[in-house]
Amino acid sequence: MNIALIGTKFMGKAHSNAWRQVAQFFDPGVAPVLKVACGKHRDSLERFANRWGWESVETDWRAAIHRPDVDIVDISVPTYLHHEIAVEAARAGKHIFCEKPMALNAGQAQEMLEAAQQAGVVHFLNHNYRRAPAVALAKKWIGEGKLGRIYHWRSCYLQSWIMDPQFPLTWHLRRETAGSGPHADLNSHLIDLARFLVGEIVSVSAMTASFIPQRPMPDEATSGAFQSGAQAHGFGDVTVEDAAFLLARFDNGALGSFEASRFATGRKNYNTFEIYGSLGGVCFNLERMNELQYFSTGDPADSQGYRNVLVTEPVHPYIDHWWPPGHIIGYEHTFVHAAYDFLRAIAEGIPAGPDFRDGVREMQVIDAGLQAAASGSTVEIPR
Amino acid sequence: MNIALIGTKFMGKAHSNAWRQVAQFFDPGVAPVLKVACGKHRDSLERFANRWGWESVETDWRAAIHRPDVDIVDISVPTYLHHEIAVEAARAGKHIFCEKPMALNAGQAQEMLEAAQQAGVVHFLNHNYRRAPAVALAKKWIGEGKLGRIYHWRSCYLQSWIMDPQFPLTWHLRRETAGSGPHADLNSHLIDLARFLVGEIVSVSAMTASFIPQRPMPDEATSGAFQSGAQAHGFGDVTVEDAAFLLARFDNGALGSFEASRFATGRKNYNTFEIYGSLGGVCFNLERMNELQYFSTGDPADSQGYRNVLVTEPVHPYIDHWWPPGHIIGYEHTFVHAAYDFLRAIAEGIPAGPDFRDGVREMQVIDAGLQAAASGSTVEIPR
Amino acid sequence: MNIALIGTKFMGKAHSNAWRQVAQFFDPGVAPVLKVACGKHRDSLERFANRWGWESVETDWRAAIHRPDVDIVDISVPTYLHHEIAVEAARAGKHIFCEKPMALNAGQAQEMLEAAQQAGVVHFLNHNYRRAPAVALAKKWIGEGKLGRIYHWRSCYLQSWIMDPQFPLTWHLRRETAGSGPHADLNSHLIDLARFLVGEIVSVSAMTASFIPQRPMPDEATSGAFQSGAQAHGFGDVTVEDAAFLLARFDNGALGSFEASRFATGRKNYNTFEIYGSLGGVCFNLERMNELQYFSTGDPADSQGYRNVLVTEPVHPYIDHWWPPGHIIGYEHTFVHAAYDFLRAIAEGIPAGPDFRDGVREMQVIDAGLQAAASGSTVEIPR
Amino acid sequence: MNIALIGTKFMGKAHSNAWRQVAQFFDPGVAPVLKVACGKHRDSLERFANRWGWESVETDWRAAIHRPDVDIVDISVPTYLHHEIAVEAARAGKHIFCEKPMALNAGQAQEMLEAAQQAGVVHFLNHNYRRAPAVALAKKWIGEGKLGRIYHWRSCYLQSWIMDPQFPLTWHLRRETAGSGPHADLNSHLIDLARFLVGEIVSVSAMTASFIPQRPMPDEATSGAFQSGAQAHGFGDVTVEDAAFLLARFDNGALGSFEASRFATGRKNYNTFEIYGSLGGVCFNLERMNELQYFSTGDPADSQGYRNVLVTEPVHPYIDHWWPPGHIIGYEHTFVHAAYDFLRAIAEGIPAGPDFRDGVREMQVIDAGLQAAASGSTVEIPR
Repeated sequence: MNIALIGTKFMGKAHSNAWRQVAQFFDPGVAPVLKVACGKHRDSLERFANRWGWESVETDWRAAIHRPDVDIVDISVPTYLHHEIAVEAARAGKHIFCEKPMALNAGQAQEMLEAAQQAGVVHFLNHNYRRAPAVALAKKWIGEGKLGRIYHWRSCYLQSWIMDPQFPLTWHLRRETAGSGPHADLNSHLIDLARFLVGEIVSVSAMTASFIPQRPMPDEATSGAFQSGAQAHGFGDVTVEDAAFLLARFDNGALGSFEASRFATGRKNYNTFEIYGSLGGVCFNLERMNELQYFSTGDPADSQGYRNVLVTEPVHPYIDHWWPPGHIIGYEHTFVHAAYDFLRAIAEGIPAGPDFRDGVREMQVIDAGLQAAASGSTVEIPR
Repeated sequence: MNIALIGTKFMGKAHSNAWRQVAQFFDPGVAPVLKVACGKHRDSLERFANRWGWESVETDWRAAIHRPDVDIVDISVPTYLHHEIAVEAARAGKHIFCEKPMALNAGQAQEMLEAAQQAGVVHFLNHNYRRAPAVALAKKWIGEGKLGRIYHWRSCYLQSWIMDPQFPLTWHLRRETAGSGPHADLNSHLIDLARFLVGEIVSVSAMTASFIPQRPMPDEATSGAFQSGAQAHGFGDVTVEDAAFLLARFDNGALGSFEASRFATGRKNYNTFEIYGSLGGVCFNLERMNELQYFSTGDPADSQGYRNVLVTEPVHPYIDHWWPPGHIIGYEHTFVHAAYDFLRAIAEGIPAGPDFRDGVREMQVIDAGLQAAASGSTVEIPR
Repeated sequence: MNIALIGTKFMGKAHSNAWRQVAQFFDPGVAPVLKVACGKHRDSLERFANRWGWESVETDWRAAIHRPDVDIVDISVPTYLHHEIAVEAARAGKHIFCEKPMALNAGQAQEMLEAAQQAGVVHFLNHNYRRAPAVALAKKWIGEGKLGRIYHWRSCYLQSWIMDPQFPLTWHLRRETAGSGPHADLNSHLIDLARFLVGEIVSVSAMTASFIPQRPMPDEATSGAFQSGAQAHGFGDVTVEDAAFLLARFDNGALGSFEASRFATGRKNYNTFEIYGSLGGVCFNLERMNELQYFSTGDPADSQGYRNVLVTEPVHPYIDHWWPPGHIIGYEHTFVHAAYDFLRAIAEGIPAGPDFRDGVREMQVIDAGLQAAASGSTVEIPR
Repeated sequence: MNIALIGTKFMGKAHSNAWRQVAQFFDPGVAPVLKVACGKHRDSLERFANRWGWESVETDWRAAIHRPDVDIVDISVPTYLHHEIAVEAARAGKHIFCEKPMALNAGQAQEMLEAAQQAGVVHFLNHNYRRAPAVALAKKWIGEGKLGRIYHWRSCYLQSWIMDPQFPLTWHLRRETAGSGPHADLNSHLIDLARFLVGEIVSVSAMTASFIPQRPMPDEATSGAFQSGAQAHGFGDVTVEDAAFLLARFDNGALGSFEASRFATGRKNYNTFEIYGSLGGVCFNLERMNELQYFSTGDPADSQGYRNVLVTEPVHPYIDHWWPPGHIIGYEHTFVHAAYDFLRAIAEGIPAGPDFRDGVREMQVIDAGLQAAASGSTVEIPR
């Protein structure tokens, strides 16, 4: 299967590595071929392609998509470009591996889904954290009933990379390019995990906050496509929130929370969740992603407690492909797992989620969160 | 100063211990005398008084309050009795040491405050966790500016003691006796800590959940005063929520969360908060109450991280009265600290908080939370 | 039972509190009466006695011991005085509650044991950490066979309070008053715990280290009894080690380690042990003394891990006398438990350990450790 | 630079991945070419070579070494084969990348060193944990003087993979193939780290233990080369220890410990160290290898504590080649770093340690440990 990669920054690197590693550590049934990498600037693009082993380059993403020797389009660009590229890829009959968040809003997501369904292609939204072995293990346990009836989901995704007021106005900080701020970027991950592990969300309340209203304009290299919002003296308006906190009710009655911020001092990639059920509980922290905390009400009365499961045993999801017990894996391995499952979906027809149907639901929750924050009222998610 | 203790259950025990211990480990200026203990059942009351060294007993709380040899009334009974006792105590000119939550609602709290102010007595609301040394240390640091501008408050108070559906319908589970469920019981602690450490709350959004609608009626010994709500077969309606999650905006612009539940599997007394500011962050967990996590943005770039301060040094609040470094203290010590500060407030006029003014503000936030949950809309707190 | 307390410093305070608290929280069968406190300086002694409620004072410990109204002698003075006081107390027919370490060496300990046995008094060595609920729980589990055959004991007791070269030459730092340094002070605790939990030690290897050879002479108030070792300019020789590391073989074949230091940067009272057995493991850390880590090989293959048991449940040792689940206790509670068990030993004849027989064994291991370090050879412990 | 890999099991896989990844994430100056893989069984060898991209295969390691198109020999076979292969490789003028432990004993190591020195080739011993970013950061800090004078090294390497008595008698459990048990396998890592971070070891005391004297013979596939020791009924003698605990004195006066076991229940790859110095301390745990605990005595008195540095910042060693802050790396990345530094040593002459000189010193400490355990006496390390 020949891949066209659109985007060569952080996600382009992570995806390139995943396509390379998956065939070494897994047997996905089809061999991924790094056919063409697509970026804006030919010089840096060629260096990127050489480094990662992409056979060719294109500076026009449409040209890349329509090449007859391309089977898969890997969308690794800023959010505002997802819709256009995905629809075009679907119409060209290419399978789609799309970075998150899916789109600027649920309307775009819905059109992407429809295009993919009409084309009959495999569509995949890369919420890679589903494939941390510890998260996959939590999913397995919940499926086995080890947690019983779920009462609560508590989650946060905390970072601090824009706390410096001199951090520039990159594409992440403008609504037209990012959709929203940490809500789209980080809560989207949490919402995906919550839907995966707990179920559908039926209503949300929300509050957002903005702490730094204007920032220096970025230099061209980091600006992405936009130039709007510029002002005298080289400052521009931040048009997304700096923090977004949500409460949510699930269709099974559980009560949940989602708290995303880029102003959480000292937190780097602090994505945590807790699930409390009638028979047990689990807790996860991405910064210690090889561990899963588990409490069982079935343990003897005098020896109950959250146990720290080091998720590096052959019996744990994906681990038999890597190293012996106690030898941890890292962030990028979740992308390798995603590539594996996506390729198997193509080769063997095994469904791999989240797909674009999930993405539409997720974008509906994201949109509802923004609406709830703006209106000060609880918003129901459409069914 | 002669004390009348009203209530002989969990809080009666904790308060008795505090009045006894404070004179051993501290020099509060005035010596507390355990003058009279007041309870409903003479037999158990006398056993209690003997054990803890109360000089006399009363089964009528009004009689206890009006004894001329009583200077302080210690209110350690269920919430619904606070208002009546406090108002009577104030009118009798007695200083008041009142357990939390202050009252069933802000209206009651306001009347309690007015009565105390008119009487000119010292009034104190015992949110004991302000006096965990680690919390007092966080307060000190914030006062020194170590955290800078505060962006976030995140907090939870999670327990699991009523997850068994056979747990009986005690007074905690009825609105007329408890006001509300974990919202009044647990969020009240968090709201007090947030006001203490961050500042006033200006608006809240909220969601609550109920998981077990009916429970067995308690036997008489544990029922408290009420008998309403009983039904055929000995079951009664739970009329308070089982979980209450809040979002809040502070007057300094910070965004916060408060999450209280009695259905958090495996959590016993899991009261935690995180504060994120422009210059630093702190994190606290009551189950490890001798520790405080602290992050400073002023540390060298390659050695930044949350440090675990073991708050047992002589330079830490209250600690010089106890043991050498590394020798931890326990839950009940926070009550000793409260007794110390309260007695000093009487003896030396040093204000000790929270007082009833704080209690009114806190009850307004609690009421607003219930209203927000019921209405699905953000509620502003009156100024 | 009337108590004579010999010593009014750190341990005098901790013991006074224990004798006071035990009757409030426990029912030891006999009521302890704080009859007489004994110290060197009458002024500070009287202040101490007033604060803690000792009925009378003596500045001559022999006089205190021989008072006919004294039943129990509580030895809370520096180590070098234990032998003389204990032998005298035994001969006077008084029950003995003796602080650790038992004596300067095994020879002294043996004489103390013989005196106590001849007198037929209850003799008790206060290794209080046996009575941390988490440690008592580990003992219970081991007794139930939950750990299976024990392979390893790993332990350390790390502090840092003398790292400053200006810290004075107190009695702890002279061989004639302390016996040895952290070996006697800290390893003695670990050895007691190891004997309690794992079994008898049959041989040891050891290395010690000294980092600061001379220190300023203390002022008289902190010097204890000795004045030897003084030199020109007010410095004296440190004659005990600063750190003592031991390896040990147990009679059940287990291999163990004991590592004590007063030069462990940032460690305050870091007393930890790990026990590894064929069916399970436990880990303890005194700075988090309300927790016990437990691993069971009987857990399902995909959910094994060390679980953190919060030892605050009514089913846990001693806890039903204190607070509800999740409300932690502190350092001094271990003394209350010791007082409780000691008084019951007197009242009901229930043996309470460690007694002086245990103390002799422990001192033999301590002596063997010093001998092994000096000789560079493994030393067998006499049987 | 063309590589010949000798060995295709766990280490063969880890090394293959490292040679592949290093050119993607780093710029080592020379490009590694996976020229030839060498194993015993042609079928599995070819599958291995195909998967990992080795251009050719050899079943005779001498043939592989002597191929003129080979520049580097990567020794990834059981310990007993290291000496013969390394000497041959050196004589053939090939650079050597050798797995640890270096050899069966110091004598072999010395011969390997001499052969490499005579040949003038680059020789490298792959103690990969030196290149965990957190360990490299500790090294940097120590070099900067942040810890001051070092008083203590405490370390352990605990596993549990042979606790089942049915675990077969693999080559790791026979002295002639492994040298010793966890002492050679695990203490060797700790000794390398201690020498790297603290300095030379001058004397050791030791105790070892054996818990399971005989085990089932392995099937041929897992037996390695040996067939000795077999007995009736298919059991054979375990001829290495199951646990090895060491005490050590360093030439700077520090006192240290090294504790390795394969019978530490629940521990998988629990490699931890603590270093205590006059100005600071650091603690590391391989199972959380992206973190480093750091204590500074220079912090303000009321905010001292071990801080948890998440070693994922661009300012941290190696990290700028990987992912943004908070995105952790895994076990195998340490091999990529080793490959990078080894290749730079060849290309640019930058020395990379540990080399065979270090290996000889390390084997001397290992031999001294075995001798100390056997003799019961402290053993001095030759200078």
